Amino acid sequence: MRLDELGEFGLIDRIISRLGASAATDILVPPGDDAAAWTTSAGAVVATIDALAEGTHWRADTMTLFDVAWRAVAANVSDLAAMGAEPGYLLVASALGPDVTVEALDGFADGLATACRVHNVRVAGGDIVRARSTLFSIAAFGAATLVSGEPHFLRRSGARAGDAIAVTGTPGASGAGLALINAGRADAPGGDELIEAHRRPIARARVGQQAATLGLRCAIDISDGLAQDIGHVARRSGVGIEIATAQLPLHPAAVELLGHNAALDLALGGGEDFELVLTGPRDVLRSLDSESVPVTLIGRVVAEHPGEVVIWTVDGEEYRPPSRGWDQLRPLER
Amino acid sequence: MRLDELGEFGLIDRIISRLGASAATDILVPPGDDAAAWTTSAGAVVATIDALAEGTHWRADTMTLFDVAWRAVAANVSDLAAMGAEPGYLLVASALGPDVTVEALDGFADGLATACRVHNVRVAGGDIVRARSTLFSIAAFGAATLVSGEPHFLRRSGARAGDAIAVTGTPGASGAGLALINAGRADAPGGDELIEAHRRPIARARVGQQAATLGLRCAIDISDGLAQDIGHVARRSGVGIEIATAQLPLHPAAVELLGHNAALDLALGGGEDFELVLTGPRDVLRSLDSESVPVTLIGRVVAEHPGEVVIWTVDGEEYRPPSRGWDQLRPLER
Repeated sequence: MRLDELGEFGLIDRIISRLGASAATDILVPPGDDAAAWTTSAGAVVATIDALAEGTHWRADTMTLFDVAWRAVAANVSDLAAMGAEPGYLLVASALGPDVTVEALDGFADGLATACRVHNVRVAGGDIVRARSTLFSIAAFGAATLVSGEPHFLRRSGARAGDAIAVTGTPGASGAGLALINAGRADAPGGDELIEAHRRPIARARVGQQAATLGLRCAIDISDGLAQDIGHVARRSGVGIEIATAQLPLHPAAVELLGHNAALDLALGGGEDFELVLTGPRDVLRSLDSESVPVTLIGRVVAEHPGEVVIWTVDGEEYRPPSRGWDQLRPLER
Repeated sequence: MRLDELGEFGLIDRIISRLGASAATDILVPPGDDAAAWTTSAGAVVATIDALAEGTHWRADTMTLFDVAWRAVAANVSDLAAMGAEPGYLLVASALGPDVTVEALDGFADGLATACRVHNVRVAGGDIVRARSTLFSIAAFGAATLVSGEPHFLRRSGARAGDAIAVTGTPGASGAGLALINAGRADAPGGDELIEAHRRPIARARVGQQAATLGLRCAIDISDGLAQDIGHVARRSGVGIEIATAQLPLHPAAVELLGHNAALDLALGGGEDFELVLTGPRDVLRSLDSESVPVTLIGRVVAEHPGEVVIWTVDGEEYRPPSRGWDQLRPLER
């Protein structure tokens, strides 16, 4: 069916109905008015916005809009997780290129609903417009975690010399999944978890909140690439960062299917992961480790070389990965 | 200068520095972390998101990014105004097409800063990505107006039979400005206010808050076209709407430059206006009228023909404008 046959308001009704319980129909002002409204008990709102553009963040020939919606939800929840906040509501702006069909948008709504359930968030409103190319922009809102009654955040500026550094999950897994997809090897035996990590990532909201509750002060989401993103921590905190390649928890399937070196480089600079890097006392970081979300120590914060990230091999050599991450202003079409 | 020479983080620093006092640097977590955070005293957050796409909402040959930024701010503030909320913070997602220059983005940042000052809001964060075409998505947050200590909203569902209907400003002025621009008549003598209404609209936040404070229950922003948008009120409230063409406050320059009929049709269905339609007791609506923002009675809410908007001429004939408004899913390039 063509979009202009359905019309804007028909489409909005259709999306809200497919969202089911993922549409926040019980808030003060639910979807469908000029704006949405809800109460906050904590007294501190945490908010973020992200945009995912076709051609930059996904290719229409390898990703369905179900998966795009999922990744968009995860990307936003991940930003809130990196602040230690409890995710709550989403606003979803959809800019539809000329080729988008109603059926593809049904998939988008279904992906949104499923990812909302998995991440325990709901859609409070949105906007739909026509555009020359397809893009989705999601804003997400959460409540700050309270410590001793005060809002407490995990900040990029919160690292201190002497902290240990940990990462959630297996960085590079999502990038490895994308590499398999782009190489036409999405069906490679053993690659299922990598493809899943790319198409259906789960942001680490529980770990982030737990870290804030435990009084940790520093985290960052590594969706642009571990080495680059932890560089923000180094500069904002005025500290040096040292990472040991041997400690990085590479996904075994990434090592097996792409080789150790490629898996390592994807972990350091591939981006695409909605994992968290956290700093703090070694014992506190270790206590975050669980069967469902592994948390692994990968390095330490030092007073030397402030603002710099140094990556050490097991032989004590400095390692320089081909890429440290993803600059959003690099030319299009990777 | 090319964007990839500056890089993502160079560009972000440049934009924040141009925003000056319009960047919310004194909130709990200012721009530059994974998410922004601020406290809310009222306990009810009002939030909205909008997207403006090149080719749909503006043409690069007739609008600068300064003006695009201004319109984007006004569009979001207008949605909060239509809820009776006090606007506070913005998150700005910028998707940059291949042709965007650093200089054009400087203009965007300057337009953002100026429109923020005019509307008394600040930028709390954002996101910048590459895309195949340029698009800006802004999410805006405000605080609900309190009446007797409880959050009080102007809702689309709040109209009651017996209410009078009023509109702010001169609907159609912005559409007339756009018509002049598209016809190459932007310099037409006497057209300055129309061009200004299109390029630098001011959303009616003060009137919206005042209306909520006075206990009014219904408003809508008419950016998609007065006749269509008030149709949402008719359906949501289960009432009939009657508008008198003779009472519509057309802009004198629109009548003079485009003729009475064209000015009338733009007022009813041209869209582009960030004005409010409000319903309620006649005396209360009249008390909103001021020298700076005229508020004019244009019709009444009736129990008959629920869900329908009927427009009457001075001769007692029903008037059917060629368009009642703007469906976001109509084909591109008007």
